[in-house]
Amino acid sequence: MTTPVSPRSTSAQLASASGLFQTIQAKASFLCVGLDPDPAKIPAAFGTGVVAMEAFCSAVVEATLPYAVAYKPNLAFFEQYGAEGWAALERVVANIPSDVLVIADAKRGDIGNTALKYAQALFTGLGADAVTVAPYMGRDSVEPFTSFPNKWTVLLALTSNPSAEDFEFHGGTPLFEDVLSKSQTFEGADRLMYVVGATRPEQLGRVRKLVPEAFLLVPGVGAQGGTVEDVCTHGMNATCGLLVNSSRGILYAGGQESTVEEAKHASQAAAAKLQASMRTELEKAKLV
Amino acid sequence: MTTPVSPRSTSAQLASASGLFQTIQAKASFLCVGLDPDPAKIPAAFGTGVVAMEAFCSAVVEATLPYAVAYKPNLAFFEQYGAEGWAALERVVANIPSDVLVIADAKRGDIGNTALKYAQALFTGLGADAVTVAPYMGRDSVEPFTSFPNKWTVLLALTSNPSAEDFEFHGGTPLFEDVLSKSQTFEGADRLMYVVGATRPEQLGRVRKLVPEAFLLVPGVGAQGGTVEDVCTHGMNATCGLLVNSSRGILYAGGQESTVEEAKHASQAAAAKLQASMRTELEKAKLV
Repeated sequence: MTTPVSPRSTSAQLASASGLFQTIQAKASFLCVGLDPDPAKIPAAFGTGVVAMEAFCSAVVEATLPYAVAYKPNLAFFEQYGAEGWAALERVVANIPSDVLVIADAKRGDIGNTALKYAQALFTGLGADAVTVAPYMGRDSVEPFTSFPNKWTVLLALTSNPSAEDFEFHGGTPLFEDVLSKSQTFEGADRLMYVVGATRPEQLGRVRKLVPEAFLLVPGVGAQGGTVEDVCTHGMNATCGLLVNSSRGILYAGGQESTVEEAKHASQAAAAKLQASMRTELEKAKLV
Repeated sequence: MTTPVSPRSTSAQLASASGLFQTIQAKASFLCVGLDPDPAKIPAAFGTGVVAMEAFCSAVVEATLPYAVAYKPNLAFFEQYGAEGWAALERVVANIPSDVLVIADAKRGDIGNTALKYAQALFTGLGADAVTVAPYMGRDSVEPFTSFPNKWTVLLALTSNPSAEDFEFHGGTPLFEDVLSKSQTFEGADRLMYVVGATRPEQLGRVRKLVPEAFLLVPGVGAQGGTVEDVCTHGMNATCGLLVNSSRGILYAGGQESTVEEAKHASQAAAAKLQASMRTELEKAKLV
């Protein structure tokens, strides 16, 4: 194992909604690339195990950087390798330039001092600019994250999976709507984003009414069936207000038999194609 | 960093409710010791940083083992040290004997393949016998955990923090009741436990009606105000059905100025005192 790396620091520009919008305008993109390095899908040419995972993530970042404004490493895929995987995560994140957002997809959710330790681990230790957080335990579990200036807390609201129906729609007013409304009263609410899946576009307009200013992190485009156009029709606001995530569709575009260069080219092409559709939507909305 | 350790394996006895009850009877205890090693509270005699954290956890385990049936390492406190912290967590867990339960307090909550990777990381990689999981995203986020035979999934239901009020009581039927009822229909529901705080004893009876057979992991005794007697009055079933957690009250019983030996004795005395109250309750219920 190599020596620990210095964590990256968040650029001041990315820490505000207006600055994030400037980055989106400059790249004509609101693409977030999800880094979910699955050993069963990484091209064999990258090798095996934690070494392959790290090399693959670095290659994807390098190939897609012109088209992406954010990267979202999914911590589960690093934790599967224990301490070695966490060390690889630190290096992958440290090597992502500071002019794009790093969202640690950790979905942490605990209270008080424990939540503060998670926030320190991910914001300060890892150097992430944003962290995904689960709202179940309420305000106590969110404010330790939003207390960090210059960092984003991305709260789960309406997720893209089929069983979001189980609890997120619970109650007369659906739970996810209560999460959106109530969390806007939390300390540091201007540093909140929300996870809202692309798989229920009819709900995106409702979400946008409840949190008109907030950025939404939108998974579910591509493999899960959502489209960039639908997401924009229902979810775009005057500063874009969207980060649309794609993971599998970009990561594994080259297939498992591809060479390293083929894999990079295929990921780049997939990212470029999504970015082109984003440019079209930004132009339609006269935001670029 | 030392070489990776071999993960511990779950004893078959601890993987069933009846076996867990036998362990509880044998020790006349249903005490779970929470390992939340906070650098601001660890006695200075243990040193500093990750080395102190590991030594302190090992000392607490050694001192309290006669009185505890479970240990619950809180992952946030290890993750605060990044990869080095994970490596220490692996060693701490590997050194906990296999005849007590290890509950990884991770509160993970994600879907499908991601959830499966978290489950593998914690059950297979770390060697935990149980993992705490958040229910927000529904069935998809729970069944990848319950699919592991011989492992427990501990679902957040009604937590002990004040802002549990924010969302856990949402709806005509409170959300936490829906979590309890609906999760009992999930695959592998016989391997579910639930987190139910001691701070709302009046709700424990309601919980017990909804999940009469399930083990409850109960935080909130001691510092947070709940009592073992109240928890047992409302929550005990015919196989005990309770694991009552204490963290701060045991870990930091000796104070920050104590020597290593004083700290161990104080933690042991605090655990022994809680265990004595548990023996009393088990005797009252004629379970020992």
